[in-house]
Amino acid sequence: MRARFRHRIRVRYSECDLQGVVFNANYLTYLDEAMTELWRAEVAGGYGAMVDAGVDMVVAEARVRYLSPARFDDEIEVEARLTRLGTTGMTTALHILRGEETLAEAELRHVFVCAGEGGKTPIPDAVRAALEPHLETDERAAA
Amino acid sequence: MRARFRHRIRVRYSECDLQGVVFNANYLTYLDEAMTELWRAEVAGGYGAMVDAGVDMVVAEARVRYLSPARFDDEIEVEARLTRLGTTGMTTALHILRGEETLAEAELRHVFVCAGEGGKTPIPDAVRAALEPHLETDERAAA
Amino acid sequence: MRARFRHRIRVRYSECDLQGVVFNANYLTYLDEAMTELWRAEVAGGYGAMVDAGVDMVVAEARVRYLSPARFDDEIEVEARLTRLGTTGMTTALHILRGEETLAEAELRHVFVCAGEGGKTPIPDAVRAALEPHLETDERAAA
Amino acid sequence: MRARFRHRIRVRYSECDLQGVVFNANYLTYLDEAMTELWRAEVAGGYGAMVDAGVDMVVAEARVRYLSPARFDDEIEVEARLTRLGTTGMTTALHILRGEETLAEAELRHVFVCAGEGGKTPIPDAVRAALEPHLETDERAAA
Repeated sequence: MRARFRHRIRVRYSECDLQGVVFNANYLTYLDEAMTELWRAEVAGGYGAMVDAGVDMVVAEARVRYLSPARFDDEIEVEARLTRLGTTGMTTALHILRGEETLAEAELRHVFVCAGEGGKTPIPDAVRAALEPHLETDERAAA
Repeated sequence: MRARFRHRIRVRYSECDLQGVVFNANYLTYLDEAMTELWRAEVAGGYGAMVDAGVDMVVAEARVRYLSPARFDDEIEVEARLTRLGTTGMTTALHILRGEETLAEAELRHVFVCAGEGGKTPIPDAVRAALEPHLETDERAAA
Repeated sequence: MRARFRHRIRVRYSECDLQGVVFNANYLTYLDEAMTELWRAEVAGGYGAMVDAGVDMVVAEARVRYLSPARFDDEIEVEARLTRLGTTGMTTALHILRGEETLAEAELRHVFVCAGEGGKTPIPDAVRAALEPHLETDERAAA
Repeated sequence: MRARFRHRIRVRYSECDLQGVVFNANYLTYLDEAMTELWRAEVAGGYGAMVDAGVDMVVAEARVRYLSPARFDDEIEVEARLTRLGTTGMTTALHILRGEETLAEAELRHVFVCAGEGGKTPIPDAVRAALEPHLETDERAAA
């Protein structure tokens, strides 16, 4: 079985707030960075090549459950697995981890669109083929 | 019937990304600002007084459905109504609007904690009383 | 004599860091917002109309002296006056104020360019005429 | 001669704006991250240990000259060298590089303070000794 995709991030000082922890919105920035890195790791040419070929993706829905706060200077990891790979959309379950501890569970639903703010478009075949090994439909989506 | 709470925000240039629209994480920042303004409008002394009195609140769960993008220089409004006011937690349904158009629907679940990263604590009575007029339990939460 | 341009901003929770004050980079975001508002107040159609007409502006140099920290929930004002209005560039002196207190002094040098990342272009005549009342060349630039 | 300190950063999607380049304020965030990494590399225990020992540092002045824009997905490097190591303050010259190209030149002036927003305090001896190899007083500061 293939290892799940993981991407490591170091928490910046500027990402933490007066409560001493990462501000809640910044978790979505971490997830976005992880998706870019998933594309770099798996899709030929990465996210940029897909956009150059006329296909972009937008976030249609985001959900985060905050379990334990990330702090300044923490090395965290974002683990991602796909739970749905539809015709024009995909759903990704993500965990933000610090070592063995799960700091947050999240779910992102993306829609593929024609680049330049066009309408929905099917996921390109090469992208679909590249992502399929990360699909784990047997599992419950993070929630 | 009381009017729902609304807070107006002007979209900054720095909040928009290469797709020409507000980056998805920044919606959570808008929601956070709206919650601060709800406290200012309704709770005596605002959020600061509550924290000075030893009670803080943290986001336990956030969900956003992105329906139509906000853009640079848009004047948007965040409308908030409470859908649950429990013992130590509350749930808020929020809409991000541009005029009559709903750009995003969101839900935030907050937990009240002892300030300084302590454990859960009951919602102070004065805060509860101040927020109750914004509770609309008969309605379905945004979703 | 004309009053100097001022723009009011409320400090967000998310803009403050572990030191309890606004993170240093966020002052540049405030300055950028103030420039947008200066355009809205003075230039017909605002910044958007200028870009639509093919002229954009980029920051070529920024300088900030941090004198006293801004804090969460502060209402601050950005005061701007032009100190140089050249052929393709302009320099703006800005003060960030909380009441009578100067929190920061800053200077921005902008260059006008053809929109879409083109090369330098002269400041459009209408923009120059609109900005000239804010030029105070007799004064030393901030700092 | 000692190699200058360098720290590598990958530009995030969320850091780029409508002009297709990194928003000007975000360069200061990159510089801040580089200073944290300089501390990690050179000062025993890093920045956190210094703060735990009661000494913190704040930015008193920042200057950036933007020469060529950084873009989404660029791998950039921040190079730092100290140009002044005073009693309670230090000045750092930084370059933001993409390969051999200098994208921005910057200067940061920090002041050391008692942690918890106290007044100025001398640079701790161990920190001074750790940083001295990065001092290059013979050179003109960036700018």
